[in-house]
Parts: sequence; C-alpha cells; structure tokens
Amino acid sequence: MRYYRISDETVRRLPIYLRGLLFLAEQGQQNISSRKLADFLGVNSWQIRKDFSYFGGFGTRGVGYSIEKLIKQINKILKLDVGHKAALVGVGNLGSAVLIYPGFRIYGFDIAAAFDANPKKVGRKIRNITIEDISNLQTLKKRKINLAIIAVPRDAAQQTADALIKAGVKGILNFSPHYIAVPKKVKVITIDIAMDLARLPYYMPT
Amino acid sequence: MRYYRISDETVRRLPIYLRGLLFLAEQGQQNISSRKLADFLGVNSWQIRKDFSYFGGFGTRGVGYSIEKLIKQINKILKLDVGHKAALVGVGNLGSAVLIYPGFRIYGFDIAAAFDANPKKVGRKIRNITIEDISNLQTLKKRKINLAIIAVPRDAAQQTADALIKAGVKGILNFSPHYIAVPKKVKVITIDIAMDLARLPYYMPT
Repeated sequence: MRYYRISDETVRRLPIYLRGLLFLAEQGQQNISSRKLADFLGVNSWQIRKDFSYFGGFGTRGVGYSIEKLIKQINKILKLDVGHKAALVGVGNLGSAVLIYPGFRIYGFDIAAAFDANPKKVGRKIRNITIEDISNLQTLKKRKINLAIIAVPRDAAQQTADALIKAGVKGILNFSPHYIAVPKKVKVITIDIAMDLARLPYYMPT
Repeated sequence: MRYYRISDETVRRLPIYLRGLLFLAEQGQQNISSRKLADFLGVNSWQIRKDFSYFGGFGTRGVGYSIEKLIKQINKILKLDVGHKAALVGVGNLGSAVLIYPGFRIYGFDIAAAFDANPKKVGRKIRNITIEDISNLQTLKKRKINLAIIAVPRDAAQQTADALIKAGVKGILNFSPHYIAVPKKVKVITIDIAMDLARLPYYMPT
C-alpha cells in the first residue's frame, strides 16, 4: 500500500493522535468521533478530519472512527510498526531522564545503547543499559542502530552529530540548545523545551 | 496595536522563527529572505511567508525581512516582551535538567521557584534556586508566578495540576507522560519526548 506524501505538519500531529488513541483503546473504547477526539486532545476537529483524510477517512456516520484501525494505519504511515532501536549520546540530567522515560515503548522504540564522554560515567548501568565510551559510536552501524538522541552540552553538539552520521545514523532527535548542520539525507528534529514554554503566554489573560 | 487571532499552528512556529532570528542577529545579520530563513531552519519558505503575513509582511523585495523588526514583532505577539516568571514542580532528573537549562532566558523566562514532594530535596540549592516543599505552591499567586512546568511522576501529574490551578497558575508546560484535565481557561502544553522521536522513522530510507 502506498500513501501520498504527507505534510510535515501532519506528520507532527500523527503521534499526538496515536498517543491519544492508544490511551482510549487501553480504556476499552472502540470508536470515536473526530469532535470527541479533538476535545480530548485539545485540538481542532476539522484539523483531525483533514489529517485523517490523507490516508482515507475511516469514519462511519453516527459511529465515528474505528480506534483500532486508526492506530494500525498511523503506525504504518509513521513506520512505527516495525520497531526501532535508538542510541542516546550524553548521559547528564536530561540524558538520564531519557533513559528512564517510560514513554518510548508505546511507539515501538527501544533505547538500546547509551554513550558518554566522561570516563567516570562509562561502565555505569541505568535500567538495563551500560554506558559506553563515545569512541564506541562507530559500532552503531554493525548494531543496526540508525536513530540517535543527542543530549550533550551545547559545544559538543555538532561533533556528536558528525560522529553519529559517520556511524550511519539517519535520524537525530537533538535536545542540545544549538543548531546542528547535517547532510540533506539526515533528518534532525530539535527539541528546545524553552521554545515550548514560549507558546504559553500568548494564551494567557493580560 | 491589535492583531487578528493567530492559528495554534502559527503560534507553535513563531518561537522556532524567533530562536533562529535571535541566533542570526547575534551573528550580526540584519536582513534575511524567507527562502534563506527557511533553509536555515529546515522549514518551508511559503509557510514562513504565510505566517509572517498574519502580522503584515515586513519583507522588502531584494532585501528581505528586517531581522530586528521581526524579533520585536514576534516577541510582542507571543507576549514575551514583558518577561515571565515560571515555577518548576518536580526536581528529578528531568526537573534538574530544566533548572540548569540555559535556553529560557532568550525568551524572557525566569524559572523563579522549584518545588518537590521529597523532604530530602527540600532546602537543596540548584543554580540560585532553593527547592521548596510542594505545600508552598499556594504562595505562587502572591509571588505573581502564573506559569508552571510539571516534571513529576505520572501518578502525581493530575494532583499537581490541580494544586497549581488553585494557586492561580494559568499556563502549564507538562512533561509528565500523562494527560491532565484542566478548566478551559487554563492552557496546557504537553511535551512527550517519545512523541518527537516518533516522527523520525517516517523520514528515513527503508
């Protein structure tokens, strides 16, 4: 089955829908209308209908969308149905929080390796992961890990990205507060927690 | 000066533009075309032009947009020009990372207070912030702090949100991997780091 190219904005929203749908499925719910899903997630229902129309609406009038079908479809579109291994680089406060974060599994992710430049941290174990020296990054290709999370200090971000790309990594989630330059074939998503906070005041009463 | 109501999606992108523009201004750049800004940020240039058109395009043919004017305008629209104090609840790994995160200042945020339920953590100092007991949350109104960041364990998320709202908080950045229910007048932005990772595989070669 092939899909039309989906906009970046829709790709950004699909995991939000997926998370909500998984939660509702867990509660035993089988169908939902776009309006109720929108209320639950705090988004616009026309937006949901528009996004779902990319892969053919499954809505039935009066019944709504099949939650199970939507979950399957979104997982397939986002290529989450196959499972993915990811590496973490930088095991400071943020990196440690990533390692113990329970939310990766619901999307089929396995944080399978962690690296740090600090010799004092190398060899330590967090959950079931033993922290490795960053010189081991080159083993990622052989271990079939092509996703990575960067949680290193600002000044080490670019060289970390360079080493990851050299090791065959194709997708990077960047938590470091710095722009990183990568070749076009590599996808980078930068998370700046301050940027998310920056959206709040707009909605507040003055 | 009044603005038309701006879509949530544009509000989400404005801090991304702002961050890039501040970076470019720091480098001494004065003008930029939407295409160059788009290349730099890895977004679509038509999207930038559309978003900027909400508040009147400042672009001049052949010269581009004035970076300084855009920064001023976006800060004003997002109400970031007045400065904001925020409280952090939950000083575990993620909360500690938030406290030492250098990126809040560029948006005019000051993390002015931190709270934890663990008596062992209360009284400890991180940067210039002394961790307080969560029973102190009720003092937020008097201290004019109406933004909060929740970084508590999943099971404590809802009761933390309830206590914050009772203390007059109007905007919440939620890092806990759980939905929280709030009255309509309160704005919640939930950050799920796994959700961001979930966008990457879509872009990767198969």
